Amino acid sequence: MKRYLSLLVALASGLFAFGQKTFSLQSPDGALRLDVANEATGQLRYSLTYKNKPVLLPGTLGITLKEPNVNLSLFRITANTTSTHDASWQPVWGEWASIRDRHYELRLGLEDLGDQHLRVDVVFRLFNEGLGFRYEFPAQAALQHFVVASENTQFHLAGDHNAFWIPGDFDSNEYPYHRTRLSAVDAWADSTHSEIGVKSIIGKDYVQTPLMLKSDDGLYINIHEAALVNYPAMDLAVNKSNNTLQSVLVPDAVGNAAYLQAPAHTPWRTIIVSDKATEVLASTKMILNLNEPTKLKSTAFIRPQKFVGVWWEMHVGKSSWDYAATQSASTLVAHGHHGANTPNVKRYIDFAAKHGIPGVLVEGWNVGWEDWYGKWKENVFDFVTPYPDFNVKELQAYAKKKGVKLIMHHETSGSVTNYERWMDTAYRFMKQHGYDAVKTGYVGRIIPRGEHHDGQWMVNHYVRVAEKTGRYGIMVDMHEPTRPTGLHRTYPNWLASEAARGNEFNAWSVGNPPAHETILPFTRLMGGPMDYTPGIFEIKMSAYDPKKKEQVHTTLAKQLALYVTMYSPLQMAADLPENYEKHLDAFQFIKDVPTDWDDTRYLAAEPGEYLLVARKAKGRNAWFLGAISNEKPRSVEADLSFLGPGAYIATIYRDADDAHWQNNPKAYKIETMTVTSATKLPLKLAAGGGCAISIVPKSKK
Amino acid sequence: MKRYLSLLVALASGLFAFGQKTFSLQSPDGALRLDVANEATGQLRYSLTYKNKPVLLPGTLGITLKEPNVNLSLFRITANTTSTHDASWQPVWGEWASIRDRHYELRLGLEDLGDQHLRVDVVFRLFNEGLGFRYEFPAQAALQHFVVASENTQFHLAGDHNAFWIPGDFDSNEYPYHRTRLSAVDAWADSTHSEIGVKSIIGKDYVQTPLMLKSDDGLYINIHEAALVNYPAMDLAVNKSNNTLQSVLVPDAVGNAAYLQAPAHTPWRTIIVSDKATEVLASTKMILNLNEPTKLKSTAFIRPQKFVGVWWEMHVGKSSWDYAATQSASTLVAHGHHGANTPNVKRYIDFAAKHGIPGVLVEGWNVGWEDWYGKWKENVFDFVTPYPDFNVKELQAYAKKKGVKLIMHHETSGSVTNYERWMDTAYRFMKQHGYDAVKTGYVGRIIPRGEHHDGQWMVNHYVRVAEKTGRYGIMVDMHEPTRPTGLHRTYPNWLASEAARGNEFNAWSVGNPPAHETILPFTRLMGGPMDYTPGIFEIKMSAYDPKKKEQVHTTLAKQLALYVTMYSPLQMAADLPENYEKHLDAFQFIKDVPTDWDDTRYLAAEPGEYLLVARKAKGRNAWFLGAISNEKPRSVEADLSFLGPGAYIATIYRDADDAHWQNNPKAYKIETMTVTSATKLPLKLAAGGGCAISIVPKSKK
Repeated sequence: MKRYLSLLVALASGLFAFGQKTFSLQSPDGALRLDVANEATGQLRYSLTYKNKPVLLPGTLGITLKEPNVNLSLFRITANTTSTHDASWQPVWGEWASIRDRHYELRLGLEDLGDQHLRVDVVFRLFNEGLGFRYEFPAQAALQHFVVASENTQFHLAGDHNAFWIPGDFDSNEYPYHRTRLSAVDAWADSTHSEIGVKSIIGKDYVQTPLMLKSDDGLYINIHEAALVNYPAMDLAVNKSNNTLQSVLVPDAVGNAAYLQAPAHTPWRTIIVSDKATEVLASTKMILNLNEPTKLKSTAFIRPQKFVGVWWEMHVGKSSWDYAATQSASTLVAHGHHGANTPNVKRYIDFAAKHGIPGVLVEGWNVGWEDWYGKWKENVFDFVTPYPDFNVKELQAYAKKKGVKLIMHHETSGSVTNYERWMDTAYRFMKQHGYDAVKTGYVGRIIPRGEHHDGQWMVNHYVRVAEKTGRYGIMVDMHEPTRPTGLHRTYPNWLASEAARGNEFNAWSVGNPPAHETILPFTRLMGGPMDYTPGIFEIKMSAYDPKKKEQVHTTLAKQLALYVTMYSPLQMAADLPENYEKHLDAFQFIKDVPTDWDDTRYLAAEPGEYLLVARKAKGRNAWFLGAISNEKPRSVEADLSFLGPGAYIATIYRDADDAHWQNNPKAYKIETMTVTSATKLPLKLAAGGGCAISIVPKSKK
Repeated sequence: MKRYLSLLVALASGLFAFGQKTFSLQSPDGALRLDVANEATGQLRYSLTYKNKPVLLPGTLGITLKEPNVNLSLFRITANTTSTHDASWQPVWGEWASIRDRHYELRLGLEDLGDQHLRVDVVFRLFNEGLGFRYEFPAQAALQHFVVASENTQFHLAGDHNAFWIPGDFDSNEYPYHRTRLSAVDAWADSTHSEIGVKSIIGKDYVQTPLMLKSDDGLYINIHEAALVNYPAMDLAVNKSNNTLQSVLVPDAVGNAAYLQAPAHTPWRTIIVSDKATEVLASTKMILNLNEPTKLKSTAFIRPQKFVGVWWEMHVGKSSWDYAATQSASTLVAHGHHGANTPNVKRYIDFAAKHGIPGVLVEGWNVGWEDWYGKWKENVFDFVTPYPDFNVKELQAYAKKKGVKLIMHHETSGSVTNYERWMDTAYRFMKQHGYDAVKTGYVGRIIPRGEHHDGQWMVNHYVRVAEKTGRYGIMVDMHEPTRPTGLHRTYPNWLASEAARGNEFNAWSVGNPPAHETILPFTRLMGGPMDYTPGIFEIKMSAYDPKKKEQVHTTLAKQLALYVTMYSPLQMAADLPENYEKHLDAFQFIKDVPTDWDDTRYLAAEPGEYLLVARKAKGRNAWFLGAISNEKPRSVEADLSFLGPGAYIATIYRDADDAHWQNNPKAYKIETMTVTSATKLPLKLAAGGGCAISIVPKSKK
């Protein structure tokens, strides 16, 4: 590739005005251009343009260490190297069967101008999708073990963009999204969200990543990070006077950011840019390309899958996780509405078996739920002791007979020291009892006390769980971890995370506004799959209790569409079996929709407005479309030109003409029609509505 | 006992002046008297007298909670009950074959005068040896999970006593003792002890327990705590203006003291009093009586024992723990002076087998020592990966053939989160490879970061280690834990702890002054056995390197005496085999001295001055005496009236006439003589000297 490089990379290493040295790099398609300037003072600044429009104005780079006490901000450039990379790889599962990693790299070797002459490399990788860069600390005598106090990376935006943001917070990402100019960010407004277990909002002018931006000149910009390992998550401080975002690292219990040992590096800081919103959605590839290949010795045990579970019935108040009186663990006297009882679990197993759903999650199976929440209690669960009405062996045999796998549940209640003590024992227990997937949870203040969900210690914990479950041949789905950063490439047994405001909030809070699911793919999902738990058919909670006002903020058809629009290899059919049985025609889409794909086409999208995506089923000629709208009704056209030759049968699950998320959410229509690659399907989406379509070759039908 | 109680307990529950209610209790022998007054304001104060001399003037009781936010200081007494207890129990091992627990108890039921009417019991137990009391929180609707901010227990002394103290410190107890009036306490003076790994001195006017006091009117007073479980250790703030000590609880990472769930209780606060110093030493019985009986299902695996080890050779600089270059873990290139290599370990096994020493400790056997210290590094050791020159299986077979047990070493470097992840795996590894005892270590800043060695989280960790090793059938010896509080009754597999300034400090620091070992039995050892590692024959470090000035601050004979004066069921013969081989006549005492006893008689003692103790070997008619002096030469007389009938052979290992800890430490004499119960042996102790005596029936010899 060397000969192409010379054409593509304009490299200027001469002296410029005031002794400034500059380096430039263009993306493979030439649309993006990175400039890095080492000013005469030693300050390092980088900027980015897309098709000659400014994306990032010059912003500083630097890191402040605490031990040794050095502010790495002024540098001398000692080396610069460029290289190119173009290769494809096949994910174990994903939106595409193959992913191309094509980028140009600029590596600057820096020497701190301070007394200790510490060496740092800054590595930039420019893709067609955007820019990734990170700091690297080579092995060196003067820097072995060290403590990071702060990272001084700036993202200097070219304007006061429209932003899709949630508060910068050390513990929670379960907020609904705001849609304001950056200058109007006010994170304190979210302090009222009492439905969120643990909030640690940093301050008024802080947001978290993935941050989605749209400029007035039509650029879509996404700022996030990739490969968050052994480092705290990054929040962003908004400087409203100059449109600058600055990295804020989540501190540990004593106020430090990270403990590193050279050679070491930070995660990649990522800026995805396009003038098409659909291209941003497809740029999750870039995040994946910045992650390491899988570290698992075997991936044979990994199976993307759908599941049902003893779960939503607790959210709607039909049953409870705890077996005895809530909030008092003194005695285990059954109160009689414990969800995870053997006959009830069998009912779910029967339902799953009947409808070809491979997994059954059971929450509340293990002792400890009486006082698990909000006490900062350390020894909450032991992960191996079932409640007396949950017969582990009987259910193991029953599930096996029915060809269904039970999915384990490990709620830690944030007591991670306790979970870490039990992990090996708990995973052995799982393997002994036929479980090969676990849903973990981190609801509550973290123990070790003083640590945060998003700090280095917890980041390392999540990776440890992924590694260890991987070694045991266990798939994992984490709830309440920090936001994903593409680590599912490295640990493909880490199928999904929640790490955002999931569907469950609709059951018992103000819920998720209709726009929510049109924003999540541009924010939370940039880093990896989400276990959003779609598929709620009984939209209004008044069905369970006339006094309840809560409801899911979508139509039923939109719930179906989410199986396509919210990419995940792990998808729950979250509603109760009895609710599905009332609508088996609509449930057919959930039965049919795959969880793994050969190809994905984002056909139309606008964050906060709508999304239309088509995906081709893994290993077969069948396509599935999902279209969703925010609170507005709208029409979108699905151009089916991606279809292969021949005729197909499309089954369209759409909002009825009078459907409306609030007034008439359960009104849907199912229609079938013959389509070809020439078809342009007009889709009508209700307010808060959606449409799901399965397309299979006519001959196969 | 009820009928005696009425005679012995003066219980006054009527109204006194200003509405004060008072309660009194006397010790079984009548020497001690406790008075508790509930003042009209609600304030609760207690006082203590011994033979009508004031021990404690009225001091307040109370606890401040953070969640709920309640200061429990003013109470209404809702109930008072007295009871008596008299029973004996047999420890698995100890200084006595049987221990009598005779005490009178006063339980006051209190109701907080605040809004929430929280209920607390204060329970006093008065023994002939002293007083123990604790706070108990009964189960109650208004108090389930709660957070303790501080404990406001006062020990209001009757004067400015002479004190044997070390600084109040959240992390270390490895200080040499000060001997000053309480009014002269200055803990900052100890901030210069750079040889101590982690110091967290609280402030100038803080000391830690066990605190030994001597009043001008001849009372010996010892303040400590018993049964420290699920609570932080207690330090003491010295109010010099009124001779009051106030409890200071070690905080956690966020500044809280303890997280409790009712029913709960604090440890016992203990005040041991006597007009005889020797009685204080025998009052460890009271500490044990305030601890719970053993929780182990089996104690059959527990064996008091002596051991040698690959250990002192690292302290004297002959070899190292690490295998590769110190402080750089990048490569494992052997530097050639790694102590824990297979041939060297075999040499220790040979020596142990030859001399009937059951155990061989090996430190530095496992990978990680290159950068283990001072980095606050989390993943330091894995406890299962040996260095390439340490052959686990070969040594297992060799030790077995020789009838010797290897003792495992688990240095955590303070990274306790890491150790807790590995504990099960490490203990299984031990059992698979023939180890049934482990020495643990906690050198370094604690991880979870922000926690302290003496905080609740670590206190729970130590207990967890004791419990878990107990379940695995493993004996444990903890170095750098918090100070013991008699928990070896509950976990008799917890044979010993270091938790004070051990003999090792003599190898590489200013060391331990000659008085040190005359103070430890009155302070550190009140809570439990210490792994002091006596038996150093090569007193001066110049033997290893002429440039070295460090030395053990005793004579060789005193090193022998320590096996008797420093009670422990686990005693190291700490010196190198080659040093013992030069003095096999003296080494004979180490071979002979037992580690378990049927009886113990403290014959003469004065803290900081001297100690003479006689102990009867477990299950046989043999006695062993130890006598030690501080820096002064002195004579003590050993009255052998404890001997049974008949003649005995006494073998006396004494300082030579010209011996002196500094000038002539290795000069010793060994003499034998016939003794009977009528014998009064005059013993001459050199400056920093000592004397060890074995006494066996003449017929047996």
